[in-house]
Amino acid sequence: MRQFVVVGHDVPTTEGFPLDDLPSAAGRLDVLCRCVNSALFLSHGIRDARVHLVLADEYTVTFDGATARNLNPDERSTAARIRNALAERENAIGHMPAEPSPGVELRRLGFEATLDRLDGTLVELHEEGTPLPEQDPPTDPVFVLSDHNDFTGEEADLLAARSDARVRVGPELLHADHTITVAHNWLDTDGYASY
Amino acid sequence: MRQFVVVGHDVPTTEGFPLDDLPSAAGRLDVLCRCVNSALFLSHGIRDARVHLVLADEYTVTFDGATARNLNPDERSTAARIRNALAERENAIGHMPAEPSPGVELRRLGFEATLDRLDGTLVELHEEGTPLPEQDPPTDPVFVLSDHNDFTGEEADLLAARSDARVRVGPELLHADHTITVAHNWLDTDGYASY
Repeated sequence: MRQFVVVGHDVPTTEGFPLDDLPSAAGRLDVLCRCVNSALFLSHGIRDARVHLVLADEYTVTFDGATARNLNPDERSTAARIRNALAERENAIGHMPAEPSPGVELRRLGFEATLDRLDGTLVELHEEGTPLPEQDPPTDPVFVLSDHNDFTGEEADLLAARSDARVRVGPELLHADHTITVAHNWLDTDGYASY
Repeated sequence: MRQFVVVGHDVPTTEGFPLDDLPSAAGRLDVLCRCVNSALFLSHGIRDARVHLVLADEYTVTFDGATARNLNPDERSTAARIRNALAERENAIGHMPAEPSPGVELRRLGFEATLDRLDGTLVELHEEGTPLPEQDPPTDPVFVLSDHNDFTGEEADLLAARSDARVRVGPELLHADHTITVAHNWLDTDGYASY
């Protein structure tokens, strides 16, 4: 299964944010919402993939394409799902998640603990990584991305220590959600071989 | 220059729509907003590209990455720009556009007239098209895409008659905005050759 971890640095950890101003009043939560879209949506269906949004190193909200219901691709309704998850954060105890709706879970886990939880080939996206066409597509990749900020030094060190592969997607530095789309296309085509 | 034409079938042609409910109350205008994002945004800059949103075959709103100012990547603020453009539609006379802000223009042109206006290699995205890696990237491509709906029969016929190349981006059917991201990446890497 394909998984994506997206680290949100400035996003809220409580539900008291407006849906009308995601860029300013919700710490660029719009970026993370677009990552959910690109991780899960096909033209006529939902991918069997998971996306994990790390919220300020305190909580992680997971959307599971296989089990989530009534997902919509727009930013606002995805932000509403995240808000609902945060509203139930008191129900997340230890490693037990809160599950505000099927396929959407909130865990009281930061970045490192979220990486600990996930199985698969950890893929780091890096300007000096291997070009995608030269890398064999893993069966169960876990891509790790940052929001509009760079990874902190600590996050980058952790990722460098943990990653199984380091790739680059092209000469341009892309938004996280665009990078997810490129990664999916690379995997969909089995490394640009099957169309 | 890279250009993208996105045909919106159900979107409004007047400015009286709410920004709070783009999927339902604005005929899936969120889809077109995400296309503006994927056509123009890089991680730390704006691409020198243009995206033309055809609104219900009546108006076309163009965002020019080279001259537009203060663009934001979120759906809501892009929708507000489109709403502002529609509010000035009476200033679009004949082939003269209304220009509500620098780099954003509204023309009183439908799909066919918009294709007439644009120079470049018209690229159709099609399930039976040439796989992207087998196609030489054009210098001045004009990609034509549809929103959440398929092209109408008439639009498809027009496109088939006009297109210079027919490509497919992979085995999965993607949203228009994801397709734009894949197309950019193909061009960025000179056909998956330069990283």
